[in-house]
Amino acid sequence: MSDWQLAGGYEFSGVHCGIRPDPSRLDLALVVSERPAAAAGVFTQNRVVAAPVKVCRERLPRNDARGIVICSGNANACTGQRGLDDARQMAAVAAESVGCRPEQMLVCSTGVIGRHLPMPQVEQGIRTAVGSLENSEPAFEAAARAILTTDTRIKVSTRAIALGGNEARITGFAKGAAMIGPNLATLLAFVLTDAAVTPHDLAVIARQAAERSFNCVSVEGHTSTNDTLLFLANGAGTPLAGASLASFSAAATAVCSELARAMAADAEGASHLITIEVEGLRTDREARQIAKAVAESALVKTAVFGADPNWGRIVSAAGYAGVEFEEEQLSLWIGGTLLYDRGTPVSFDKAAVSAYLKNHRDIHMRLEFLIGSGRCTFWTCDLGYEYIRLNADYTT
Amino acid sequence: MSDWQLAGGYEFSGVHCGIRPDPSRLDLALVVSERPAAAAGVFTQNRVVAAPVKVCRERLPRNDARGIVICSGNANACTGQRGLDDARQMAAVAAESVGCRPEQMLVCSTGVIGRHLPMPQVEQGIRTAVGSLENSEPAFEAAARAILTTDTRIKVSTRAIALGGNEARITGFAKGAAMIGPNLATLLAFVLTDAAVTPHDLAVIARQAAERSFNCVSVEGHTSTNDTLLFLANGAGTPLAGASLASFSAAATAVCSELARAMAADAEGASHLITIEVEGLRTDREARQIAKAVAESALVKTAVFGADPNWGRIVSAAGYAGVEFEEEQLSLWIGGTLLYDRGTPVSFDKAAVSAYLKNHRDIHMRLEFLIGSGRCTFWTCDLGYEYIRLNADYTT
Repeated sequence: MSDWQLAGGYEFSGVHCGIRPDPSRLDLALVVSERPAAAAGVFTQNRVVAAPVKVCRERLPRNDARGIVICSGNANACTGQRGLDDARQMAAVAAESVGCRPEQMLVCSTGVIGRHLPMPQVEQGIRTAVGSLENSEPAFEAAARAILTTDTRIKVSTRAIALGGNEARITGFAKGAAMIGPNLATLLAFVLTDAAVTPHDLAVIARQAAERSFNCVSVEGHTSTNDTLLFLANGAGTPLAGASLASFSAAATAVCSELARAMAADAEGASHLITIEVEGLRTDREARQIAKAVAESALVKTAVFGADPNWGRIVSAAGYAGVEFEEEQLSLWIGGTLLYDRGTPVSFDKAAVSAYLKNHRDIHMRLEFLIGSGRCTFWTCDLGYEYIRLNADYTT
Repeated sequence: MSDWQLAGGYEFSGVHCGIRPDPSRLDLALVVSERPAAAAGVFTQNRVVAAPVKVCRERLPRNDARGIVICSGNANACTGQRGLDDARQMAAVAAESVGCRPEQMLVCSTGVIGRHLPMPQVEQGIRTAVGSLENSEPAFEAAARAILTTDTRIKVSTRAIALGGNEARITGFAKGAAMIGPNLATLLAFVLTDAAVTPHDLAVIARQAAERSFNCVSVEGHTSTNDTLLFLANGAGTPLAGASLASFSAAATAVCSELARAMAADAEGASHLITIEVEGLRTDREARQIAKAVAESALVKTAVFGADPNWGRIVSAAGYAGVEFEEEQLSLWIGGTLLYDRGTPVSFDKAAVSAYLKNHRDIHMRLEFLIGSGRCTFWTCDLGYEYIRLNADYTT
């Protein structure tokens, strides 16, 4: 038994429908809310978007969502009108099976792009999944597993929080990191709660949570056609307001941050999770811009892979992030060691920092600027041989 | 004998001064113009800039430059006031040795950052270099070699062009690509001509040439602290105007393009040069923005390394470049094969395209949009194991 907090009023299912040849690989997940739920989404900024993203965008936000059907192994992206028809059909079959209108059902896909879905298998799989819906840890785990592509483990984060006199639960699960993925590396994340939240508040909270979590993780900066974050809130009763709403928002953001961090830690071929703290800029946005430039530098990532405390690569990546600063305003730490102090290199124990990089899976860097109070925590991973091996030939 | 066109009135030298331990590695180059030359430069956009970049920026444009002194193996970046003093001292020693004022001498460095230059060796090296100055192909080749870091070969492009009744020569040499390099991968490029051009015209031409050449090459998008392009024009007589100036500008751009392409072809660990043609956008700038996103996608680069015609990665990289378009406005070719036709995947011979990627060192991709007439040619390389090996541990 794990100690997951499963939000009440949701049932889960994960099955093998046949998108993947291996019958032991689950490839279809279903989440159903027993009553209509407020729903909101945050989607990829790519100009080229997969069919299910188009369908979800049309349907959200809303106050009567009943569930989400998700398939893995095929992204249903770049598939034209037929792909759009297939995405709508997935939702329609799921809706019919659980007894709601098609537009109350949301749909996601992840996997290889440019291929049509094998709809007979998918439709049969949805009907099978409906038959095994449960509010249980094994059913939830099967759903969390069925959305994976090249992930090596499920990604789950849950919380129970006191809201006024009641308790609410927040249940999150996710797959992939921004670019980790398969053909593209889709990020899919789902956050379910039994709290009562209005669709408008839920949309605001989803966007804020994404800003501080999924928008702060990068493997190689390649934004997918399918990236989707969905929030569902099925609580009956009076919607949260004031301090309760703020508590809920903070807990939902914490769930998303934990999922985002898990994505970077499980990035394809990664041997190190790198946490980059940037502080002291004019705004949080500037801090994120710098963190992102450092996180996406192949030179920084290969240096970590090679246990090379090459601070020049980090400082110079910060320098091209497009944020104005003077060298004298920047200091840099790796682990607890100061390497660069307000624009000047510090003489440091290179062997010790190299050992820190080599012996810890979890690496911390801190860039401190002397300009303002803007800050950001960003996650990425190193870049080594295994990334090349996994990505040099994925489709065949 | 090669058939280089050496611009008249310049002398070259390349020597080993001792920045590098291996005595067979040249690490100091000198270029001297026998008469005062117009000079202009284009520099890195990084906020963190090396000391020699600061010195060159102070001194350019000008109409009386006498030369350039360049060292490799040490970037003289992030070295504080002492680094700035050292860069000025390099120029001063070279100026004294050739008999001009210090500010008539320009200075560049490339290599590891954060280390102080070994000035006694550098100063002695400059004096030795002055003693071996020549207008000869071997001397020019030594200079072109002495600026290299992890480059595997010298990068030279020259032209002779008819200007009115006269002939002028343009002599270019360069090292590194945007991020290829060593600690950072400095791009250094030098274009010398015996034509007469005003400093103002030279500055305009240098900027235009850089836009279509060095700003269209990327290895991993990591802008160096040291990137520098210097133009010198020492022609006596009447400065070029009108059609002659346009001819000169076109030839100078062609020289820079050839050098940029050579950088991508010789990128660290590259096994393929990738040429990306993007056309049909509203502006050339939009076309470059899309080409750059495709060129810098690790997923696109690993796919080429793995001979995987994974068009989805290319299309989706175009999609996140920040340029507005609809999928139906985009078609994609690899080599001569159409893979994606106005938003729809095309059934193609995957084995044939894979063989094209595997068997050609020189790979072409073309993205055609149906929006306007903006276009760009961009160069990059694939991403394979060798890149990781070379970059995982450089400083030790």
